[in-house]
Amino acid sequence: MIKRPRILTGDRPTGKLHLGHYVGTLQNRVRLQAQYDCFFLVADFHMLTTRLDRELLTETKTNIHDVVLDNLSVGIDPNASVYVLQSFVPQIAEIALIFANLVTVPRLQRVPTLKDVMHDLEIEQPSVGLLNYPVLQAADILCVRADLVPVGKDQASHLEVTREIARRFNSLYGEGVLPEPETLIGDVPTLVGLDGQAKASKSLGNAIFLSDDAKTVEQKVRGMYTDPKRIRADIPGQVEGNPVFIYHDAFNDDLAEVADLKERYRQGNVGDVEVKRKLAAAINRFLEPIRQRRTELEAQPNIVAEVLAAGSERARSEAAETLRRMKEAMGLAYYG
Amino acid sequence: MIKRPRILTGDRPTGKLHLGHYVGTLQNRVRLQAQYDCFFLVADFHMLTTRLDRELLTETKTNIHDVVLDNLSVGIDPNASVYVLQSFVPQIAEIALIFANLVTVPRLQRVPTLKDVMHDLEIEQPSVGLLNYPVLQAADILCVRADLVPVGKDQASHLEVTREIARRFNSLYGEGVLPEPETLIGDVPTLVGLDGQAKASKSLGNAIFLSDDAKTVEQKVRGMYTDPKRIRADIPGQVEGNPVFIYHDAFNDDLAEVADLKERYRQGNVGDVEVKRKLAAAINRFLEPIRQRRTELEAQPNIVAEVLAAGSERARSEAAETLRRMKEAMGLAYYG
Repeated sequence: MIKRPRILTGDRPTGKLHLGHYVGTLQNRVRLQAQYDCFFLVADFHMLTTRLDRELLTETKTNIHDVVLDNLSVGIDPNASVYVLQSFVPQIAEIALIFANLVTVPRLQRVPTLKDVMHDLEIEQPSVGLLNYPVLQAADILCVRADLVPVGKDQASHLEVTREIARRFNSLYGEGVLPEPETLIGDVPTLVGLDGQAKASKSLGNAIFLSDDAKTVEQKVRGMYTDPKRIRADIPGQVEGNPVFIYHDAFNDDLAEVADLKERYRQGNVGDVEVKRKLAAAINRFLEPIRQRRTELEAQPNIVAEVLAAGSERARSEAAETLRRMKEAMGLAYYG
Repeated sequence: MIKRPRILTGDRPTGKLHLGHYVGTLQNRVRLQAQYDCFFLVADFHMLTTRLDRELLTETKTNIHDVVLDNLSVGIDPNASVYVLQSFVPQIAEIALIFANLVTVPRLQRVPTLKDVMHDLEIEQPSVGLLNYPVLQAADILCVRADLVPVGKDQASHLEVTREIARRFNSLYGEGVLPEPETLIGDVPTLVGLDGQAKASKSLGNAIFLSDDAKTVEQKVRGMYTDPKRIRADIPGQVEGNPVFIYHDAFNDDLAEVADLKERYRQGNVGDVEVKRKLAAAINRFLEPIRQRRTELEAQPNIVAEVLAAGSERARSEAAETLRRMKEAMGLAYYG
C-alpha cells in the first residue's frame, strides 16, 4: 500500500460553524479526506493566547463539541480521518518547548499575524504565549510529521516558521528527522455576510449556522441585505456582488432556477420576496442531509468524546514517535 | 503526621560537581533534607536555552549521571528526597505552555539574568526558549506545588516571575489553586578558585571535583595560588583572602592545625609546601567518606537510572494532580 501524504489542519474551538466555514474550509476538507491521510486538530490550548477569562474558557467544552459535530455532520468521516484534541497530546507541549529554542524573539515579532491580532484585540503587550503561537503551531504540525498543511494566505507566514524550525532542527541534528511541510495554499474563499459585510462571522451575527433549523434559515434569509437601490420589484437590480445571489450561486443546486432569477432580477421582473424564498428553500435543501446526519450523531451522546479519544490516542502515538526520533537525534535519548 | 513544607531546587546537568558546589549548595541541601520534603530537579530541558550543539547535548547523559551521583555521594538520601529528571515529567511542558499566556514579553525582557546571559554568551537575539526560561522554571516549581525555593540572589528575580504567575493564575481562576512560593534566600557562598579567581568553576579549570582521587587533589593543591609577595618561607604572609587559607577554613576539620598554620604564616615561620601538604591531607580527609559512598553507589550500575525513575514517577503524579486542579479551575476539564 502506498502511504498517502499526511495533512494536518485545525480549528480553534470558538463555537458552532456556519456557511462561511463550509465555503471556506469544510467542503475542501471533504475533498482532502479522499486523497490524504488527514489529521484535524481542535486547538484548545491555542484559545489561551487570546481568551483567558474563565467565563470564555468554560464555553470551550461546548465549543469543542459543536466544532466536531459540525465537521462530522458535513461528511468528514472519523473512520477515515483523525480528530485530535490538542490538550490530549502532551507531546505537543514538549515538542513546542524544544522548538522554542530554535527561533528568536525578533523573528516571531516580525510575524504579521501577531501585529494583526494585537491591533484587533487592542493588546499592548503580547504574552509570551501569543508571541509563541507559531511555534506551538509548528509542534501541532510536526508532531504528526505532516507533509502538507492547507492554509489560507493569512496563515502562510505561520507555516514559514514551521518550515524554518524543521530546517534548523535538521541542520543541527540530522537531515530528514523532521519533514519540511509544504503549504497547500488553497484559496480559502470567504462568504459575504447576510448583512452585506465582507465576511459572515459568528461575532457579527450575520451568518447562517450549519445547525440552524429550517425556520431560522427562512427568517435570516428574509432579513438579508440586497441591492439597496431596488426599492420596488420592477426596478432592474444588480446581481453582481449582491449577497442574495452570491448565496444562490454557492448553495442553490437548481442552476436553471438561479439563471432564471438572475435574468428576471436584472430586468426588474421579480420581487425580492421570491428570490429570497427560493434561496431559503435552496439552503434548507443543502442543509437537510447535514441536519439528518447531525440527528443521527446526536443519538450517540458520547460520539464526540469517543472520536476525540480515539484520534488523540492515534496522535499521541505518532507524537511519541516524533519526540523519540527528535531526542535520539539530539543526543538526549537516555534512561528510556 | 504534619506535612513538611515542600522545597524544589535543581541543577542544570553541566557535569561533575566540585568543592565550590559543595560550599554553595550541597551542604545546604543536606541540611534542608532533614527539615523539608525536598524535590531536586535535574533540569535537562533548561540546557537547550544555551547549549544547542549536538556535541554538547550528547554529554547530557553523562552529566546527569555525574550530578546525581555527586548529590548522592555527599549524603543526599534518595529515600528521603525526590530526584526528578525534568524531561521525564511531560506535565512541566504543558504547565509552562499555559503559564506562557500569563506573562508578557516585555516583563520577561526585564528579567536581569536574561541580559547577563546574553552578555556572557554574546547572544544578540535571544531565542523564545531563553526568554521563556523563568516561565519554565515557574512550571518546575509549581508543578509539585513547592512552598519554598532556596535561591541565590541572582535567581531571586526568576522566583519573582514564579510568584507573579501564581498570583495571576489564582486571580483569574481561583484563590489558592497554586501556592505562591516563598524564597529561601540563603546566601549561596562562593568558593574562590584554586588560581585565586573569584569563583571555582569547571570551565575555568580551577576547581577540585568531588570525584577527584587523592593524588589529583595533592597535585591541584600544590599548584594553588597563594600570597604572591611571599617569595621565601621566612617572609610574613597574608592570610586574609589567601585561597590556601580560605580552603583550610572551609575544609580542614583540624581547627587547631589551621590556627597554628595561620599564625606561623603571618610570622613568616612556615613554608607554602607544609601549608599545602596539610591542606591536601585535610581535603582528602573531607572527601574520603564521599569517595567511599560513591564507590558503593557505583557498584549498583543502575542506581542513577533507578533513582531518577522513581523520583520522576513521584513528580509526574504530583504534576498530573496540579494540572488537573489547574484545568478544573480554568474550566478546561473535559472528557477527562
